[in-house]
Amino acid sequence: MKNLLEELSSEQLVEVERQFKIYSNGANDIIPENELKNKIARSLLKNSPLKIKLGLDPSAPDVHIGHTVVLNKLKQFQENGHIIQLIIGDFTGKIGDPTGKSSVRKQLTNEEVQNNAKTYFEQFSKVLDMEKVELYYNSKWLSKLNLEDIIRISSSITVARLLERNDFSERYSTGKPISLHEFFYPLMQGYDSVELESDVELGGTDQHFNVLMGRQLQEHFGKEKQIVILLPLLEGLDGVEKMSKSKNNYIGVDDNPIDMYGKTMSIPDELIVKYITLITDLSLIEKNEFKEELEIGNLHPKEAKMFLARTIVRMYHDEQETEKAEESFKAVFQKRTLPNEIPVVKWQGEKVIPIIELLVELKLLKSKTEARKMIQNGGVRINTEKVNDTHLQVKTFDEPIIQVGKRKFIKLKPE
Amino acid sequence: MKNLLEELSSEQLVEVERQFKIYSNGANDIIPENELKNKIARSLLKNSPLKIKLGLDPSAPDVHIGHTVVLNKLKQFQENGHIIQLIIGDFTGKIGDPTGKSSVRKQLTNEEVQNNAKTYFEQFSKVLDMEKVELYYNSKWLSKLNLEDIIRISSSITVARLLERNDFSERYSTGKPISLHEFFYPLMQGYDSVELESDVELGGTDQHFNVLMGRQLQEHFGKEKQIVILLPLLEGLDGVEKMSKSKNNYIGVDDNPIDMYGKTMSIPDELIVKYITLITDLSLIEKNEFKEELEIGNLHPKEAKMFLARTIVRMYHDEQETEKAEESFKAVFQKRTLPNEIPVVKWQGEKVIPIIELLVELKLLKSKTEARKMIQNGGVRINTEKVNDTHLQVKTFDEPIIQVGKRKFIKLKPE
Repeated sequence: MKNLLEELSSEQLVEVERQFKIYSNGANDIIPENELKNKIARSLLKNSPLKIKLGLDPSAPDVHIGHTVVLNKLKQFQENGHIIQLIIGDFTGKIGDPTGKSSVRKQLTNEEVQNNAKTYFEQFSKVLDMEKVELYYNSKWLSKLNLEDIIRISSSITVARLLERNDFSERYSTGKPISLHEFFYPLMQGYDSVELESDVELGGTDQHFNVLMGRQLQEHFGKEKQIVILLPLLEGLDGVEKMSKSKNNYIGVDDNPIDMYGKTMSIPDELIVKYITLITDLSLIEKNEFKEELEIGNLHPKEAKMFLARTIVRMYHDEQETEKAEESFKAVFQKRTLPNEIPVVKWQGEKVIPIIELLVELKLLKSKTEARKMIQNGGVRINTEKVNDTHLQVKTFDEPIIQVGKRKFIKLKPE
Repeated sequence: MKNLLEELSSEQLVEVERQFKIYSNGANDIIPENELKNKIARSLLKNSPLKIKLGLDPSAPDVHIGHTVVLNKLKQFQENGHIIQLIIGDFTGKIGDPTGKSSVRKQLTNEEVQNNAKTYFEQFSKVLDMEKVELYYNSKWLSKLNLEDIIRISSSITVARLLERNDFSERYSTGKPISLHEFFYPLMQGYDSVELESDVELGGTDQHFNVLMGRQLQEHFGKEKQIVILLPLLEGLDGVEKMSKSKNNYIGVDDNPIDMYGKTMSIPDELIVKYITLITDLSLIEKNEFKEELEIGNLHPKEAKMFLARTIVRMYHDEQETEKAEESFKAVFQKRTLPNEIPVVKWQGEKVIPIIELLVELKLLKSKTEARKMIQNGGVRINTEKVNDTHLQVKTFDEPIIQVGKRKFIKLKPE
């Protein structure tokens, strides 16, 4: 592809740089950077939008804030008039794992695929303008490939290259079996880019290998090569592990405003900038101002985090709900009062019960050991009073309000 | 498969053993032996022939005696009423090498495939009864496979297993690239056995991996597994290298009787038994008698080799031609006289010329060094007289008959 930047007016050059800065902000890697600028230039010269691809696993449609890193990047492209190509990988979903060994790749029916796609659609609509999104099912072209096509596709890649992929390389070197068909998954993902002539493909850093495959296959088939934008994986609330449902360190896009606000407030201070950068819809200018204020100390981390929490809640709920969530948070954690609504548990057990047994019985804590620790750490309150005695006998007929940690409340109501 | 041998009458048991001895004679390996006996038993109980498969490369139809090792084994099955399945691997032939790097796998047209198949057919008819042979082109089923089929097929084999194949393993460990599509060739060969429900597949020892693949895929697809019979690779006339056209150490099935006889007589004595076993159509009893006579010394190696030569020539030519070939051989090599017909070369060069230069000029030997060695070894004669002097001046106007080695003769005729 020839250098189109030379053909641009100075206004257009400024526009290329403006867009490039937005797209590269927060990205781990853009492969290669210059080609992305060139593609943006072409879109201006020809007045034709770029095609931005994201592949979706049809078996895991539950979306949390970690997933929105990539959605927010797509949104930036969308806001500049480019076309989003969402690809539901239904072909592999319908095949499942032919060896029957992997529970991750269970075979999906047509109906399940459709339902999952619908779920994606609903959840994505909270970030993207779904009316402007192009939705594809890759079985449309993959199911038509025959052995001759596949041999031609496979001839473009070496076995050694495939074995370089992190997980394959580890399994091969430790003698764990890799079925030959597993080699097809990156190729299929890559072939989607050939079929859709994608200009840019987004992926998490863990998708590095698969996303580059599209570039390689496009070249093999004589198409213009796509740009690869790799985005960081978002740490969860614990600040350590990747955000995931199974680790229970996530903020769901379906979370209610109070949970969403409260969970955001629980992240470590070090993550504030990363969250602002990756999962909010603030403009680049706003993001940069925010970072600067924080750096020079004009913004206290607690205020910064409250701003972050407000911004996130506002993306998924309305202004009124956002304000209520903040008020509720302030009431509980800043004034050390009780929240407005506390779940009531009907109590049919002992009238007087040792605090540790009560905490376990109410499932507020998993074991007596945990309960004891939590009390010793000052994490248990009854009617806002900190409990210091691990042997305390609780009188349930007093209808006490039990608080564990910052956000768990229960009011006992003996029957 | 249950043990059918128990259901056989004693006569049938004898028949199973008789056939098994014939099929295993000369084979390097039968995998597994017991199952072959069981398959023969079933063919007797159900009065239904076994299907014996041989796959053929559509790009190399030139047949020499080395190839007849496997043809003679097929013939033994055919003589016992079993069905021969010849498979022309036209699918891969039509694809060629999609990387364009391998000259071995050049892309063939439909017409070329047909012509090559015809050549096979003509040449095989010298050993097999081609009217009873079933001929298949594997593009018939392979071209219909789609990606889903291929993923299912590929899921039955691991990458590590494929990399165990000798040539792959060597290339992988030395860093030479293996294109992913190359992994398909053994799978396709194996899938042919699934499609044709073959009972037995024959192959040279160099086909070990590919032929076993059929067994594995048949099992994966819930079919009865084929038996694999591996046959030795035949050494050529030099007694060292595998017989091949490129090494020029072969006997062609199209060779004339005199060449065929003479070439056979040139093999080292150690190969006589192997040739008798693998490439003649003698019965197992005759072969065993022959070996015994040779071992106990009743048969002199020279007589044994003449018997072998007669037997081979008789397979490809009639009785009269065979006798003439033997007479011609005796005349030249045993009585040290000249053969009946000697090619005449018209000579326009020097009237008197040093013997070494003459030998090179006539292209009887490649270099002066070779010519000198041949004379020193007593391998050059003029008018039946051995030449001892490497500086001999040959008078061409005497119209001398020049002999090099055992079978090269030329008569000079100055013009």
